[in-house]
Amino acid sequence: MAGNSFGDLFRITTFGESHGKAIGVIVDGCPSNIEIDEAFIQSELDKRKPGQSKITTQRKESDTAQILSGVFEGKSTGTPISIVIPNEDQRSKDYSHIADKYRPSHADYTYQMKYGIRDYRGGGRSSARETAARVAAGAIAKLFLKQQGIEIFAHVSGVGQIEAPNVDSSDLNLLLETRESNIVRCADPAAANEMIDFIDNIRKNGDTVGGRISTIIRGVPAGLGEPVFDRLHAELGKAMLSINAVHGFEYGSGFEGSRMRGSEHNDVFTTENDKVVTKTNFSGGIQGGISNGMDITFKVAFKAVATIMRDQETLNQAGEETTISGKGRHDPCVVPRAVIIVEAMAALVIADQLLKQRAYTHI
Amino acid sequence: MAGNSFGDLFRITTFGESHGKAIGVIVDGCPSNIEIDEAFIQSELDKRKPGQSKITTQRKESDTAQILSGVFEGKSTGTPISIVIPNEDQRSKDYSHIADKYRPSHADYTYQMKYGIRDYRGGGRSSARETAARVAAGAIAKLFLKQQGIEIFAHVSGVGQIEAPNVDSSDLNLLLETRESNIVRCADPAAANEMIDFIDNIRKNGDTVGGRISTIIRGVPAGLGEPVFDRLHAELGKAMLSINAVHGFEYGSGFEGSRMRGSEHNDVFTTENDKVVTKTNFSGGIQGGISNGMDITFKVAFKAVATIMRDQETLNQAGEETTISGKGRHDPCVVPRAVIIVEAMAALVIADQLLKQRAYTHI
Amino acid sequence: MAGNSFGDLFRITTFGESHGKAIGVIVDGCPSNIEIDEAFIQSELDKRKPGQSKITTQRKESDTAQILSGVFEGKSTGTPISIVIPNEDQRSKDYSHIADKYRPSHADYTYQMKYGIRDYRGGGRSSARETAARVAAGAIAKLFLKQQGIEIFAHVSGVGQIEAPNVDSSDLNLLLETRESNIVRCADPAAANEMIDFIDNIRKNGDTVGGRISTIIRGVPAGLGEPVFDRLHAELGKAMLSINAVHGFEYGSGFEGSRMRGSEHNDVFTTENDKVVTKTNFSGGIQGGISNGMDITFKVAFKAVATIMRDQETLNQAGEETTISGKGRHDPCVVPRAVIIVEAMAALVIADQLLKQRAYTHI
Amino acid sequence: MAGNSFGDLFRITTFGESHGKAIGVIVDGCPSNIEIDEAFIQSELDKRKPGQSKITTQRKESDTAQILSGVFEGKSTGTPISIVIPNEDQRSKDYSHIADKYRPSHADYTYQMKYGIRDYRGGGRSSARETAARVAAGAIAKLFLKQQGIEIFAHVSGVGQIEAPNVDSSDLNLLLETRESNIVRCADPAAANEMIDFIDNIRKNGDTVGGRISTIIRGVPAGLGEPVFDRLHAELGKAMLSINAVHGFEYGSGFEGSRMRGSEHNDVFTTENDKVVTKTNFSGGIQGGISNGMDITFKVAFKAVATIMRDQETLNQAGEETTISGKGRHDPCVVPRAVIIVEAMAALVIADQLLKQRAYTHI
Repeated sequence: MAGNSFGDLFRITTFGESHGKAIGVIVDGCPSNIEIDEAFIQSELDKRKPGQSKITTQRKESDTAQILSGVFEGKSTGTPISIVIPNEDQRSKDYSHIADKYRPSHADYTYQMKYGIRDYRGGGRSSARETAARVAAGAIAKLFLKQQGIEIFAHVSGVGQIEAPNVDSSDLNLLLETRESNIVRCADPAAANEMIDFIDNIRKNGDTVGGRISTIIRGVPAGLGEPVFDRLHAELGKAMLSINAVHGFEYGSGFEGSRMRGSEHNDVFTTENDKVVTKTNFSGGIQGGISNGMDITFKVAFKAVATIMRDQETLNQAGEETTISGKGRHDPCVVPRAVIIVEAMAALVIADQLLKQRAYTHI
Repeated sequence: MAGNSFGDLFRITTFGESHGKAIGVIVDGCPSNIEIDEAFIQSELDKRKPGQSKITTQRKESDTAQILSGVFEGKSTGTPISIVIPNEDQRSKDYSHIADKYRPSHADYTYQMKYGIRDYRGGGRSSARETAARVAAGAIAKLFLKQQGIEIFAHVSGVGQIEAPNVDSSDLNLLLETRESNIVRCADPAAANEMIDFIDNIRKNGDTVGGRISTIIRGVPAGLGEPVFDRLHAELGKAMLSINAVHGFEYGSGFEGSRMRGSEHNDVFTTENDKVVTKTNFSGGIQGGISNGMDITFKVAFKAVATIMRDQETLNQAGEETTISGKGRHDPCVVPRAVIIVEAMAALVIADQLLKQRAYTHI
Repeated sequence: MAGNSFGDLFRITTFGESHGKAIGVIVDGCPSNIEIDEAFIQSELDKRKPGQSKITTQRKESDTAQILSGVFEGKSTGTPISIVIPNEDQRSKDYSHIADKYRPSHADYTYQMKYGIRDYRGGGRSSARETAARVAAGAIAKLFLKQQGIEIFAHVSGVGQIEAPNVDSSDLNLLLETRESNIVRCADPAAANEMIDFIDNIRKNGDTVGGRISTIIRGVPAGLGEPVFDRLHAELGKAMLSINAVHGFEYGSGFEGSRMRGSEHNDVFTTENDKVVTKTNFSGGIQGGISNGMDITFKVAFKAVATIMRDQETLNQAGEETTISGKGRHDPCVVPRAVIIVEAMAALVIADQLLKQRAYTHI
Repeated sequence: MAGNSFGDLFRITTFGESHGKAIGVIVDGCPSNIEIDEAFIQSELDKRKPGQSKITTQRKESDTAQILSGVFEGKSTGTPISIVIPNEDQRSKDYSHIADKYRPSHADYTYQMKYGIRDYRGGGRSSARETAARVAAGAIAKLFLKQQGIEIFAHVSGVGQIEAPNVDSSDLNLLLETRESNIVRCADPAAANEMIDFIDNIRKNGDTVGGRISTIIRGVPAGLGEPVFDRLHAELGKAMLSINAVHGFEYGSGFEGSRMRGSEHNDVFTTENDKVVTKTNFSGGIQGGISNGMDITFKVAFKAVATIMRDQETLNQAGEETTISGKGRHDPCVVPRAVIIVEAMAALVIADQLLKQRAYTHI
């Protein structure tokens, strides 16, 4: 209820501030007997960690996950899996200048209004550092989904005004390879180069820029999602909108679909190898809030990072006008690192719905 | 968990199928001593009901709400308020032709896969008729919010390729008057006319079209929203994505914001009449998932209605190819009636968050 | 959260006041394809309804259940099953004398303090009339459990100082027959007669008395219950303590077990027809909060009905001393009618845990 | 849902196995600006820790709590407070003999049935060691309640057949002093001596015994508790029944009250210093599930510890008959250490209800 948990049956609760002792997560409801591959969890965290390339923050954190419970002889036991990630590179003094100032488009003002107190160091709890805990939990969800034959693939499909063309999604492993071959994590090499140059230029100007991430979930059986309020796409939407800096979510045909006619938009049923499929997939794999077995597709919009290396006007806690300048080490664009967060949240949604399906669905 | 409830502290649970005896809702957690104005609840239902104009379905339902509990001498008592809306105009035979066919882009197939049984009459539970129950509950939430000085205004800002220009939102009552003066519920009269003509034309062609609804919530104090997973915009997003036919949600600057730079996008704090405000509002009134006291703004995309008055290919339950033709009476475009559903869901989110704020927020 | 719902996956929400238009319940999460036998639901309600015998209240209510949704062609569809029970015999004027007085050991004072308003007619929401809705929902849970081979049997094992001897529980159907052959619902005929005479005498004296109900649940597979907070007996305990007038709950050896030594109390494992069993069952079928396959046993204590046909001192809303006398038609002892409520709540707990087992348990 | 969380608004989630790296807890929903006195948290843990006296287990654990998040400059920030307690004295080899045997009246068999895997070392997750995390969380709840003027006092009121007489509860601080002056934690010195001798004797015989704990909560305002399912005593009951070894719960008059008549049992309202009070308190401070401002009183029954230092028959995982003998270091009676667990769970219930009262109660 206080908002630090996600999911019902496969449920995570995260904790920790950017410059506290540690951040972490409890995964409650992971089925027993899942092989918990710690190297995989770490490799996921490595994709999100800071300091990866010239277009991410230069802050250094090893983001080493320590599992404290819930795993016995390499397997989940059905009890809570708790993971702690110690904070290392805390230059808290970088933040003393904001102790009593409200950074524009940050959460300083709203946290102060809500709680009457805030840990201002690095944004405290409002820092995107919290999402490392989600990535660790998402890795566990992915290990469960893998066992069920479900794949999740996200990549950067837009940065600023740059849009990547649609990619051939017939082989998700191949796409993943292409994505990981460039530092912006776009599965189209040409667009990737354009994006990297653009972000690097933005960074040199002390500015930041937003972007978009597109996702495909493959292998989800028909029947996931609980109408009427907990539709599968509503759960995915909430999950994505809970990620720092996200301002928009659309699935299937999305906003563009709202400009189409029914006769164009309807997905006609047919069979393929004795399996029911639709000829088009404007529905994004979800009809009436329930998966239909087709690829689930959605797109997420991230605003520009609020911390810019320029002077900005603002107010202090006394309500007086003042000026603030960006310090510390920040990302010029979050989407390259956010790709893995989007995948993690998607994995958590699907894992939760799979358990609900086990409970509810007709056998 | 089975998905028919929404909200935590101000919580609703809806029930009912399109062609069953009745639909309805239980509102649990409405504070006591709120004046429950039954005429207002009915007037809200009247804005959603079918048969309002030439551009809505010609089906007739009076949608008369009956309060069964929770109100004593005109006031809420703090106990569950249950509302029943009997179904009247059930031409179930209109649906016998779909008993064993899957209508394209409807929920027939997915419900059958999930439950192994479905009430096919009028789409059963997957029918948008369920949203009448939400409107009744939303009316109660609005009565609570009104007491707290909070206003909600939604209107149709786009139909197909038509986009309404931005409207002057300084007086929401005036906007509401303009909106209610036309049958498409757009607050810009010129765009409204264009939309009406377009929808009427679409209808005559036996086709349907999608559209967009924009919303402003005014008067929300700073401090609503529970980070990190239950951010205010994540709750609003889930609420909107739970409405039938919605394919996209964005708040504040939305998808367009993801194309901007930080230096353009940041909302600078200043004071106005001793109140903290931001000079721009790309944040849409929400920062770090918590309201900052500015107008909360968001936009919702609806796909075209799936039922078209044309022959379409599809499969039957046996998996054989067959043809289906639209029958019954359907909307050519849902947004004129959906405006009130969007407002209702927004009211439910804000009411729930207000109660959380009472519990948690620093005093 | 406002307390009118019970269960997570198999979840009910009740509504209604004693003298309002109706009471009722929504059952959300009932699996699809369960045969919904309406005659059975009514027969369960008939066992709880007032006016059954000389030792129950003489108030008359037919308690006729109307199913409004969630059932299609006699089967559950997986969507919410809503049931309404209209109120008929509302002599509200019987209650005008308590509009501004607090009846001793009733909820008048606490509801007034909590809500600042109360529907005083017949106790409003605090009336045990609400439990009729639970019985209707419990009947649906029983239909699901029957399909799973699970039986629930409760009977009156104590009234005032009278204790029934332990009954032979080898055949629960036989016990049920004996129980239903007497108006106090005790499975021991001799004790039943003693109880009936005692209650009848109490009634003639304008007084009331408490009692105890013992329950056996048979056929529950090993593995139900979620440690550590949601232990199976903790869920059963909460369910029972939520019934009006209940002051105590114990399972297995109960309070008496706290007087025993470990060497006496331990249940030794052995096999019987290749099935793991325990030689004794002081654990009441639950170990570490999880069912072990043995009979689940528990006992519930009900206090005496608060409304007595005698003058009592009390306060009015102004805080002045005054006198109140019992009016209306009340039970001298609730346990004969409460037997079916205990069974209903037990069925709801087990149904909910069965769905959790489906989701979580090792296969 | 997987059972490792307790509370709705003031919510805790515990993790950890008896012989894993650590146990711990996340407290989510603690209001901001509460002074978090770490020395107090540690002093509470010290009252629960093993090795305190000759009548507790001789196992040594320092049970040192480390706060990882949620506290800034000594105060709660409204964000999740996470606490880790490393495990130190893990003689896991003490448990190798039970790796494939089911200890009688332990959770070995049921965990194996439920999860298909179990961490057998020290009982893994089913060990009462988990309650140390509850005590740490309960200490935080107590710091919040203290600020609200609410006191909680529990003591051992029975061991085996020994019953302590009723104690004068006019000064809870005085009672606490007396309780802490003896190693069995009974507030009646004479009964305490009798209990200590008895337990010591039991221990020398390699046996164990059960006991009872009585609790008083003072200073709770009228209005806490959410009817109808989440009555205050139902929440307390569930909380207590979730503690290892608890077999019974009663509040106010309890089981004895079910033997009384209404004319004896009713609590008559009157005023005392302009405050509404009841002349007797058979209701245990709760009427209709809502607190009435009087002392809240309840009693909890604990069965004898299952591990005895004697040979017992049992089965191994292959289903073969075998013998098991107690090893390791165990408590002969849990109640002296459980007193602080009962207080912790009571504090968590009241803290949660206080936040609900803030949200819902009439002002």
